[in-house]
Amino acid sequence: MPLGEFELIDRWFRRPSRDAPGVVLGIGDDAALLRVPDGHELVAAIDTIVAGRHFLPDAKAHAIGHQALAVNLSDLAAMGAKPAWALLALTLPQVEEAWLGQFARGWFDLADREGVALVGGDTTRGPLTVSVQVLGWVETGTALRRAGARPGDRLVVTGTLGDAAAGLSLARGRVVGAAGSAQAHLRRRFEYPEPRLAFGRLARGVASAAMDLSDGLAGDAPKLAAASAVAAHICLERLPLSAALLEVADAAQAHHWALCGGEDYELLLAVPPAGLARLGDLAAQCGLHLTDIGECRAGEGVTWSMDGRPLGRAPAGFDHFR
Amino acid sequence: MPLGEFELIDRWFRRPSRDAPGVVLGIGDDAALLRVPDGHELVAAIDTIVAGRHFLPDAKAHAIGHQALAVNLSDLAAMGAKPAWALLALTLPQVEEAWLGQFARGWFDLADREGVALVGGDTTRGPLTVSVQVLGWVETGTALRRAGARPGDRLVVTGTLGDAAAGLSLARGRVVGAAGSAQAHLRRRFEYPEPRLAFGRLARGVASAAMDLSDGLAGDAPKLAAASAVAAHICLERLPLSAALLEVADAAQAHHWALCGGEDYELLLAVPPAGLARLGDLAAQCGLHLTDIGECRAGEGVTWSMDGRPLGRAPAGFDHFR
Repeated sequence: MPLGEFELIDRWFRRPSRDAPGVVLGIGDDAALLRVPDGHELVAAIDTIVAGRHFLPDAKAHAIGHQALAVNLSDLAAMGAKPAWALLALTLPQVEEAWLGQFARGWFDLADREGVALVGGDTTRGPLTVSVQVLGWVETGTALRRAGARPGDRLVVTGTLGDAAAGLSLARGRVVGAAGSAQAHLRRRFEYPEPRLAFGRLARGVASAAMDLSDGLAGDAPKLAAASAVAAHICLERLPLSAALLEVADAAQAHHWALCGGEDYELLLAVPPAGLARLGDLAAQCGLHLTDIGECRAGEGVTWSMDGRPLGRAPAGFDHFR
Repeated sequence: MPLGEFELIDRWFRRPSRDAPGVVLGIGDDAALLRVPDGHELVAAIDTIVAGRHFLPDAKAHAIGHQALAVNLSDLAAMGAKPAWALLALTLPQVEEAWLGQFARGWFDLADREGVALVGGDTTRGPLTVSVQVLGWVETGTALRRAGARPGDRLVVTGTLGDAAAGLSLARGRVVGAAGSAQAHLRRRFEYPEPRLAFGRLARGVASAAMDLSDGLAGDAPKLAAASAVAAHICLERLPLSAALLEVADAAQAHHWALCGGEDYELLLAVPPAGLARLGDLAAQCGLHLTDIGECRAGEGVTWSMDGRPLGRAPAGFDHFR
């Protein structure tokens, strides 16, 4: 006999949240009651992942649970915020206990590591869709924003780009012939994106602007430039590409994925030249490599070059509706 | 040519939010930055509505926009909270400008009336699903909760019950023969649920417990009783049924809808007998009628009677997964 909606929530998602910071009242009432510490601003983001768009229909429930929370935490990382609470809206075609158990494990493995209390939720029958709202806080006035880059600032990215798109291709069986370890690395990058929370916190006061890369550099860099009212120039030969990526793809394909693939959840930051070395040290403290990929200039829009030659037209970013 | 995701958000949903209370940074960055007033707790709820479950596939976009926000505001009403901000995650099969324009109008008609600023969102391609997170605040320690009812408290409801279920049946073409005005009233109750925000604020300090009725009294009353660790007894002959409902349904059908229909978004409250008259006056100030439908007793579970005769078994509440 299938579990009812309310037993379902109870069984898999209700946990004692009295010990979680700031939780006055968690799951089980009409809404959660929360306390933001004095001297802090509340930071709020919402993101949805949909079967067939953000994960494959046969994706593991554990990975979906991780991904749903991770893509939201990535937004908080880009603000330099500390995540505290999450609300989960789960739309499911049917209740499968094994699936739910694995989903909850994927969720809580990440939530417990990052100190995120689940304080509310909603379950509904329908096509598999996971909407998550994360809430966190940041010391008043210290949040990283997209607006803040100035002409002369360097543009840097964490980690490597294009891995998630390659991982998606692998999961779809579209890439063959690479070593098993490279394939496993790329698939993991797609299935288990890693929000750069610790580095986001440290980057406050050093970086002048930041955003997370969810739609590919080609789609996201113009947003940072527009928000900061600067132009951006990006040198494609500097894009950080992983050895695993270069094992499954030639240079042209690798660059295409790095620019247009989406779902990498690395951070793009602007930093005054004087702060570049310091920002690199802070990244290293978090086990991350930082790569200088270009600069901000006076003007507007993004220009791209490869080995010094300007690109004729801008690469297209990822857009769910194109 | 279809609009892209980002132009879509800009065109229909971005509004100046600098003047909205507590909004430091609204739509357009990775996350919103918000300020909860000193001496207040943050109140957070999330709710999803899905085509074919909460609204009919051919429902008007204006009504869907209203409904998506209203069902969330109802959760805040049940806490006695003042809504302040909302985040909207919209999953759409395709971008239709006319649809989006109407959806946005339905949303903002309600949001502007209740002073709710849209501070973040996410659009994704997929089956039509609308997840909304609302955030608000309440003076510290004054929130209405489900836990708080005591033996001897009266149980009261606002408005009338069962209208939304009748409206759904009408929208599906399943009820015929009633006057056009009754039909229009019931359909409106289904399509445009009205969150009882003003009354929820006033009920603090008078009511001992509250929740909103989204799953029908039969499903929801046991939740309030369980949260408060009391038993509840409800007299079915006292349920407030609208004249419009009794025009389209016989008494048995009307009671069934009132108990099991869901989506009424009225409030169920517990109140000590000494506060009953005062609570009725406060409801009247908000243009609402309050009906005494039963009482809290020592023990657990909910019992039901009709004209003094106990019901053999409990009516079943609405559950999305049954």
